[in-house]
Amino acid sequence: MDWKEKIRTIPDFPKKGILFYDITPVLQDPIALEQTISQMKEKYSNEKIDYIVGVESRGFIFGSLLAEKLGVGFIPVRKKGKLPSKTIEQSYALEYGTATIEIHEDALKAGDRVLVADDLLATGGTAQATAALVQRLGGNLVGFCFLIELSFLNGRKKLEPYHIESLVQFDQ
Amino acid sequence: MDWKEKIRTIPDFPKKGILFYDITPVLQDPIALEQTISQMKEKYSNEKIDYIVGVESRGFIFGSLLAEKLGVGFIPVRKKGKLPSKTIEQSYALEYGTATIEIHEDALKAGDRVLVADDLLATGGTAQATAALVQRLGGNLVGFCFLIELSFLNGRKKLEPYHIESLVQFDQ
Repeated sequence: MDWKEKIRTIPDFPKKGILFYDITPVLQDPIALEQTISQMKEKYSNEKIDYIVGVESRGFIFGSLLAEKLGVGFIPVRKKGKLPSKTIEQSYALEYGTATIEIHEDALKAGDRVLVADDLLATGGTAQATAALVQRLGGNLVGFCFLIELSFLNGRKKLEPYHIESLVQFDQ
Repeated sequence: MDWKEKIRTIPDFPKKGILFYDITPVLQDPIALEQTISQMKEKYSNEKIDYIVGVESRGFIFGSLLAEKLGVGFIPVRKKGKLPSKTIEQSYALEYGTATIEIHEDALKAGDRVLVADDLLATGGTAQATAALVQRLGGNLVGFCFLIELSFLNGRKKLEPYHIESLVQFDQ
């Protein structure tokens, strides 16, 4: 699969000067979508995994598909105020201001082995906050799996020493 | 699968007096999740379907899983301002104010057969707006598939004469 052919770039979204990598053509094409999830599974085929965590919203797509492919449960991480039961929360810095995400307190037990799946690794802020949530519940974070890595943003460095896999990398 | 055992109710969420049906225990349990998607597939096994549409955010989970199970593409409908390419939008009434959702203009072609999947049918406002988006692009809306139907809210009536399926119904 030539991901660079399948992923569409949109200039100046969400704002001037940003080149947005649009994964909707991958979702629309059942073969591309199936290959994405199979390749994600392949990257962690030697690991025991209990749960996939996916972050709202696009992480819900890749996370739940990967969970189903591995035959494990899916745990949603959501923006503050969306999960109905008792949660813990984690804030992180954005370019302007902060964001807060949450996980249900009873989503996992100490020692559960967790993989985080998402569409895109940019600066790594969301991923780092997600890792913190998993660890605060006692989860064992096996690693991260992304469809796209924007390597020029150095998100990988922020997530060290976690295991990080991505299916396609963009240098600019 | 006894869905009523698996779906957790949370009183007073998101506000006083509302009983919230929490599907996270279904997601967490790989057998329950697999059965949900298999039963959704079964409901439309006699229909030709080209795409599953899922609405942000929980519809992304059920929609993408059902698309993968059927071997068809997935099309996301998102809150206004989130989809990067050219979109059409549809507004609908909430209890207070309005909400606006969007679909990419090139997400489907005239005549494509589309099924909408989501976790919950409540008053049907989001579902009705999603149907309007699909129809405005010339799509042929095969029907809706929900995990939960809150039958006391009469969403089904709002979506007539579309074909509506749900796996579990709550009367209060």
